[in-house]
Amino acid sequence: MTLGSPVGVVDLITPANCPYQLYNQEVVWNGKWIQTRQVGFRAQNGQEGVWQSVHRNTKPHGAAADGVSIIARVRKAGKVLIILVKQFRIPTGKVCLELPAGLIDHGETSQQAAIRELKEETGYTSAKVVNESKLCFLDPGLTDDSQVMVVVDVDGDAPENINPVQNLDATESIEVLLVEQSELMTYIENLDSSIVVESSLLAYAMGVKFASLV
Amino acid sequence: MTLGSPVGVVDLITPANCPYQLYNQEVVWNGKWIQTRQVGFRAQNGQEGVWQSVHRNTKPHGAAADGVSIIARVRKAGKVLIILVKQFRIPTGKVCLELPAGLIDHGETSQQAAIRELKEETGYTSAKVVNESKLCFLDPGLTDDSQVMVVVDVDGDAPENINPVQNLDATESIEVLLVEQSELMTYIENLDSSIVVESSLLAYAMGVKFASLV
Repeated sequence: MTLGSPVGVVDLITPANCPYQLYNQEVVWNGKWIQTRQVGFRAQNGQEGVWQSVHRNTKPHGAAADGVSIIARVRKAGKVLIILVKQFRIPTGKVCLELPAGLIDHGETSQQAAIRELKEETGYTSAKVVNESKLCFLDPGLTDDSQVMVVVDVDGDAPENINPVQNLDATESIEVLLVEQSELMTYIENLDSSIVVESSLLAYAMGVKFASLV
Repeated sequence: MTLGSPVGVVDLITPANCPYQLYNQEVVWNGKWIQTRQVGFRAQNGQEGVWQSVHRNTKPHGAAADGVSIIARVRKAGKVLIILVKQFRIPTGKVCLELPAGLIDHGETSQQAAIRELKEETGYTSAKVVNESKLCFLDPGLTDDSQVMVVVDVDGDAPENINPVQNLDATESIEVLLVEQSELMTYIENLDSSIVVESSLLAYAMGVKFASLV
């Protein structure tokens, strides 16, 4: 079970706004879904170092980002609820509370991917896009894995959203929860200690909580 | 320049709340700072798959998380400003606008790491901790890289914060910016297209912007 292919030195163009001289970039492991690289770098003061990083192999040519995260606001019976998903994440070894999210498919825009992933993961549909973010990076010291965050409004009283039905891949197991936006941070802080949270969701909840400053 | 060591099969205990049967976990590349793994998994319906992931080798034994991100609110001349940092990130190949952040050192608490990293990266000191988050994961489909988000208040009018001086590592090059919290999202949206943003900062800014819902 290797699911890897040959590795080697790759071409390296130092970006114009890079303060380092980069050299010896190598793909040290190349898998079906991700590859691991390392590169030498030399700072302007002559100090040298090595940076090791990981990169997805799955980003479609021309896609705006690797994936999307969705802030879906369900208006239902006079309340505003945020759709959350809970699933076991193999890399973390833990159950993780997250915003709905997924990789962008070939030929999709970020908004199309957001509406498709929301429907597949949660069953909610007829989502209207309110905001699409700038390109952002999930863990820029480690990886170029990137996302666009898409805010959508969902009418929870619409007939098609009364009994939403997921359409998951054969190996997926995802629980859907709705939490009032004003209660997000309290909900996260009171989670059972066996459940962890994804950073974008946590940071959004913190922004909501700390928006008003005295 | 390999900076790697032998790899092989590792022990694997399936967590109690894991819906998959895990098997054949391998470290497929083991570097000085990170390692790449893959594992087979079998869903309850019998469907099988393989998950490839990356893991930091640098987390101190007993540390709360791999690192911290800091939401530092500087009160200065009647305004509330958030401290941001801008730096070239080798894994992304781009200049990235981020919250101040860093890895937790051996023996440090999350709060100690936050105050130290803030001082080193930005020069701001005498920070008072307002909030320390639950453990969160930056990119849980790809890695177990984790952080604690720490909110601190900084008196920007205090003498020690009038001319803050960074204390960077020899290869670091970090620009410090202060942006009014209420203007964070506008600032991010108007960034030059050559500059990207880190997800936790973007999500926090979105939370601030969308806190009030009609």
